[in-house]
Amino acid sequence: MNFSHHLRSIQRTSGSLLCIGLDTDPRRMPRILAGSRDAATEFNRRIIDATHDLVCAYKLNLAFYEAMGEPGRRCLKKTLAEIPDGIISIGDAKRGDIGNSAESYASSLFDDYRFTACTVSPYMGEDSVVPFLRNTERGVFILAVTSNPGAKDFQYLNVRGRPLYEQVIAKSRRWNTKKNCGLVVGATRPKELRRVRELAGNMPILIPGIGAQGGDLRSAVRFGTDGRGEMAIINASRSVIYASSGGDFAGAARSEAMKLRDEITRHREKLLM
Amino acid sequence: MNFSHHLRSIQRTSGSLLCIGLDTDPRRMPRILAGSRDAATEFNRRIIDATHDLVCAYKLNLAFYEAMGEPGRRCLKKTLAEIPDGIISIGDAKRGDIGNSAESYASSLFDDYRFTACTVSPYMGEDSVVPFLRNTERGVFILAVTSNPGAKDFQYLNVRGRPLYEQVIAKSRRWNTKKNCGLVVGATRPKELRRVRELAGNMPILIPGIGAQGGDLRSAVRFGTDGRGEMAIINASRSVIYASSGGDFAGAARSEAMKLRDEITRHREKLLM
Repeated sequence: MNFSHHLRSIQRTSGSLLCIGLDTDPRRMPRILAGSRDAATEFNRRIIDATHDLVCAYKLNLAFYEAMGEPGRRCLKKTLAEIPDGIISIGDAKRGDIGNSAESYASSLFDDYRFTACTVSPYMGEDSVVPFLRNTERGVFILAVTSNPGAKDFQYLNVRGRPLYEQVIAKSRRWNTKKNCGLVVGATRPKELRRVRELAGNMPILIPGIGAQGGDLRSAVRFGTDGRGEMAIINASRSVIYASSGGDFAGAARSEAMKLRDEITRHREKLLM
Repeated sequence: MNFSHHLRSIQRTSGSLLCIGLDTDPRRMPRILAGSRDAATEFNRRIIDATHDLVCAYKLNLAFYEAMGEPGRRCLKKTLAEIPDGIISIGDAKRGDIGNSAESYASSLFDDYRFTACTVSPYMGEDSVVPFLRNTERGVFILAVTSNPGAKDFQYLNVRGRPLYEQVIAKSRRWNTKKNCGLVVGATRPKELRRVRELAGNMPILIPGIGAQGGDLRSAVRFGTDGRGEMAIINASRSVIYASSGGDFAGAARSEAMKLRDEITRHREKLLM
């Protein structure tokens, strides 16, 4: 199934635009998992068990898993195997390299790990992005406006009267010949998100930065969704997975995820009234 | 030792600005290694054995190793263990992510793999780069002008009368408080390389794109080095490591590397006359 159709379909069946970011840090594991041989995988398994009916996607930032070395790699694979069919898995890798290297990265993320989608960095241009876009079933989210303070260093530079990120969007639209390309816009940037949605048509937008990073949920829904209140993937990571460090961490994650999902639903309902 | 001093020192003791890119692709292994249980590692070991007196650095593009899955990870580590002390190892990873993720990537590259240096992508700005710069012994090469066709998509966009990459250089200089920051400029961009060297003072410049990508060696030396004919790291990958697919592949790599090193030396001598 084409990635955009897949996304629309899971957002409809789940009734959710929520994505949970499994930014799993072995130093932050609840004490109850201290005896586990593979605490990070067990942590992810319990979070997924407790939340999979509330989300359209899980996002795994590869930085956290690579920092664990080889066990991190195995944890990634085991975690991906826990995600139920239909739910989208996003490899948040932000790769970007020349053509033949980009092909290798795409092969790693899509063929070896078997993520449904990934994030890529635009700085190196077309031949660094296109290898990821070849398989129409796999989604590719190109960094446009990021949620971090450093976003201002380059993304907002004035190019012919417009910020640089608008050039990224224009090019991304051109590269999106297979309808599997999306954009990343931080939830901490509501004004920019509104503008990106205007420019991006109904491309999917991945919106990180809710929760620990302080992004605004109402704006994420209002400005991030397309005309049908869909195609925004709203990600929260630390605020959900570390909602509690107690024995009930998975239950606490579920409560937090449910709160977010319901809040998103309320904002969508207002939008579609 | 501070990274810049380290680089200057190895370039003087080796008499070489050459870096060999170990872009090792299991599908391109010489037939003589067909019986080997770990052909990629054996390939790298033989290339390093045959060339280590001719180079100041080896560059390993992580894309190739990640595409191999877990064996690629082990191959990376074993290969790094083969590189003699003093020679710089560059993890060509082009990472770029928000602060806490960037810290994880830095930890993976510098603490787990123990690369001497790495490459990073600038698109996400200061907090995505600074975590890599914390340890003054480790070098960080920020992508400025890349060798691939897609470089034109964003890097050359006009920002206040100057190409975007000049903004990257200006910021990089500001972030370079520990004298361990360098830049990446493709050898296919001689005019831009000249300009980058003017702007970058004596920052190290990593120059890929010699050989298979068609970059010009004379310009790389002439425009890439600092006033002392140093601080350029000139990288060739495929043209060296795949110089022959026969049983003598390591000897052929040595011949090719020696030719490049000597040609670089001749250009340096002309420059310093």
